[in-house]
Amino acid sequence: MASIFSQIVSGEIPGYKVAETDHYLAIMDIAPLKRGHVLCIPKQEVDHLFDLDATTYAGLMEFARLVAKAIQKTIPTQRIGMVVAGFEVPHAHVHLIPVNNMKEMDFNNPKLQISKEEFAAIAQVIQMHFKSSN
Amino acid sequence: MASIFSQIVSGEIPGYKVAETDHYLAIMDIAPLKRGHVLCIPKQEVDHLFDLDATTYAGLMEFARLVAKAIQKTIPTQRIGMVVAGFEVPHAHVHLIPVNNMKEMDFNNPKLQISKEEFAAIAQVIQMHFKSSN
Repeated sequence: MASIFSQIVSGEIPGYKVAETDHYLAIMDIAPLKRGHVLCIPKQEVDHLFDLDATTYAGLMEFARLVAKAIQKTIPTQRIGMVVAGFEVPHAHVHLIPVNNMKEMDFNNPKLQISKEEFAAIAQVIQMHFKSSN
Repeated sequence: MASIFSQIVSGEIPGYKVAETDHYLAIMDIAPLKRGHVLCIPKQEVDHLFDLDATTYAGLMEFARLVAKAIQKTIPTQRIGMVVAGFEVPHAHVHLIPVNNMKEMDFNNPKLQISKEEFAAIAQVIQMHFKSSN
């Protein structure tokens, strides 16, 4: 069965898209640690990040860099943290999390409750910044 | 003053080197979450990962990919997790951590106490795998 991310890529289930290219998609994490917590995924369904072929991996990382810059313009914080773990969804994904300190990157923290309207609004602003700089 | 990583690059202070190229260096994290916890750094001293120029950033990510594969051969685990936070040392660095579950990636965990001899031995094996595949 296709991963939840492949189902978002194909449009079978909805997602708050913030950036998309031929090979990559960025969506809001719906269980976010912070407002502006985004997942960058390759459309190709591969479980482990380091099992991606070198070209797809490099493209994903460059995509993540551009998305991170768009998040930074949307949610000003000290840094955009990056985490790749992958124990929940077997489809490689890069977490980008706007953070002011290490504690805000703690995955044990309770996830934020954000309304559909606010998710959509944040996604729209990140998308605007992504498009305007690319 | 040069960052602690720049001082390791220049040889002013020692580090357990596991991989090195003209522009990048990988060293054992001396406060590791797991055996085989490695830091990949650009020799250029830039604080935020996403402030690196696109070429240096891409090179760092490709270097991290190759180091991750060498760690995987040295310390077999389910995954090599990747974390970039940067609140402790203002010199961009990519954590690579061999992990079997999300809890092992928790930076609140107590850091392992590892002898100098074991650090050196692990570094040597990762370096061997890195060299043999590049």
